[in-house]
Amino acid sequence: MTTVPISMLDVRAQIDGAMRAAVGRLDPRTHRVAAYHLGWADAAGRPADAGGKSLRPALALLSARAAGADPEVGVPGAVAVELTHAFSLLHDDIMDGDRTRRHRPAAWTVFGEPAAILTGDALAALAGELLLEVPGPGGPRAARSLAAATRRLIAGQALDLGFEERDQVGLRECLTMSADKTASLLACSCSIGAVLAGAPEPLVAGLAAFGAELGLAFQLVDDLLGVWGEPAVTGKPALSDLRSRKKTLPVVAALTAGTAESARLAELYARPSPLSDAELREAARLVEAAGGRGWAEAEAGRRVERAAAHLADADLPDLVRTEFLDIAAFVTRRDH
Amino acid sequence: MTTVPISMLDVRAQIDGAMRAAVGRLDPRTHRVAAYHLGWADAAGRPADAGGKSLRPALALLSARAAGADPEVGVPGAVAVELTHAFSLLHDDIMDGDRTRRHRPAAWTVFGEPAAILTGDALAALAGELLLEVPGPGGPRAARSLAAATRRLIAGQALDLGFEERDQVGLRECLTMSADKTASLLACSCSIGAVLAGAPEPLVAGLAAFGAELGLAFQLVDDLLGVWGEPAVTGKPALSDLRSRKKTLPVVAALTAGTAESARLAELYARPSPLSDAELREAARLVEAAGGRGWAEAEAGRRVERAAAHLADADLPDLVRTEFLDIAAFVTRRDH
Repeated sequence: MTTVPISMLDVRAQIDGAMRAAVGRLDPRTHRVAAYHLGWADAAGRPADAGGKSLRPALALLSARAAGADPEVGVPGAVAVELTHAFSLLHDDIMDGDRTRRHRPAAWTVFGEPAAILTGDALAALAGELLLEVPGPGGPRAARSLAAATRRLIAGQALDLGFEERDQVGLRECLTMSADKTASLLACSCSIGAVLAGAPEPLVAGLAAFGAELGLAFQLVDDLLGVWGEPAVTGKPALSDLRSRKKTLPVVAALTAGTAESARLAELYARPSPLSDAELREAARLVEAAGGRGWAEAEAGRRVERAAAHLADADLPDLVRTEFLDIAAFVTRRDH
Repeated sequence: MTTVPISMLDVRAQIDGAMRAAVGRLDPRTHRVAAYHLGWADAAGRPADAGGKSLRPALALLSARAAGADPEVGVPGAVAVELTHAFSLLHDDIMDGDRTRRHRPAAWTVFGEPAAILTGDALAALAGELLLEVPGPGGPRAARSLAAATRRLIAGQALDLGFEERDQVGLRECLTMSADKTASLLACSCSIGAVLAGAPEPLVAGLAAFGAELGLAFQLVDDLLGVWGEPAVTGKPALSDLRSRKKTLPVVAALTAGTAESARLAELYARPSPLSDAELREAARLVEAAGGRGWAEAEAGRRVERAAAHLADADLPDLVRTEFLDIAAFVTRRDH
């Protein structure tokens, strides 16, 4: 069992009102899809409680406190990054053909692709709109930061889709992909509250640098869970990343290690037909034997260290620094 | 033959550099889809020239001149509304299952749905980003206007998708749908240049009101062309809106007219099987006989008159007012 950092415990209560008010602006059809996707309702529209970890909102609220402001100052940022995250998951599930999300059928399988595409569009637009409504210079500055992060997120997904069509992917470009697809929104989350609080640029840059390294650590752990995670806990089928032959960081590290196991893994990944359960288990063993698992675990640790170094250099209250580091530790030892 | 208003003649030359610089920021995969969709390239990536009318950019540049500014001031707005329009067409074609756009295969049929979804996402994000980069208060104000228009555009598409599942649609809600789906972005286009130029709120509101009425006139004419347009000119198959049983404004006006022809049209629209060519021609005759065609033509005229009245009340140079009215006249007598 992993305990949850204090700053993540009550974050949903802190942003729930603002999240519901924001999503409440959507037309009824789109709202229904959004409420399901966010875990607030089941497919029939009945109230449910199946939300995510709220990692990004927690970071956004902490980020306001890092600038000496009340966490409330970070709420529009927290809502905006969470809506952007929700938009990207909605569209990614369609693009990747993923039918399951957080133990439930993905929204597009329930409401159809058109409704899921449109709801993603609406959530992305809403995120920008919320920030632009914040009075003062912080709102536009935050909106610009989020727009840049959103474009990097999209570029990362484009790169990832491209990987699927290629036999050879290098570890460096795989890291670039993860930096774009995952870390850019985490970097934005860690700094957007400070931006809204009018923080000086060095603090904003330090928090964003912390978030970028944290984001890579997060993705490495996610990729490890995609192979060795417990299906009952992760909400994804066993060995799902290997089944869909995703070129994740530990897999690419194994494929490019130049060992006999690398060659055998490449052979399995190149098969035109679906892999059997025995072959999937073999592939997992090969990733480990070729050093992919060990590298990813060590790399996640190195990224958290680098993240901590950025925070050590930044000018923020000690208590807030500790809470950021608690989240970083949580991210790397989580099981889902 | 229809002649093109002076302010639409050279608009593509005026914004081409800025459009290409903006789209040039996209990653290579996304860029390829965008270049095809925008008519700059064919499916193999070879240069092509198959762009649209550039109506929205023309209005955006005029709108800067309405505020006494140089048209260049409106360029980021012109690019942003055109990218937003491109985003909505990319996603709408997927959602509506439309396989043809401007005489060419729709982008999703060429590059696949995932690439088309992602490219739409990227263009929408890029539009907001461009405006937020404009120095001074005009940029964020313009970004906010575009974000609100984008959300209405999405709400209109949601309403339109809902219409497909329903037997009965009222004329009032059909007008609301068109006001959201089409007119909101036209209203933004007609005012965004003035916003960037720092125009006072009454002028911005007057230009937006002009654009909203123009947008409805535009949609009415589009709907008329969807039934009675020449396929060789419109780039869409003959009677395409009837074939897909779209609940467009003239069709809904006919369906709700309470005549014998309305009842027969409703019967054809309720058929589970595809309509034959003879039935499609009959449906077109029924829309006309039930008064749908006449109403839509008259309503388009009324909307242009109301648009002109808003301009008459607004404080802008006479030459610019004339050019706006030339565009309004062009929109209502165009054949594609």
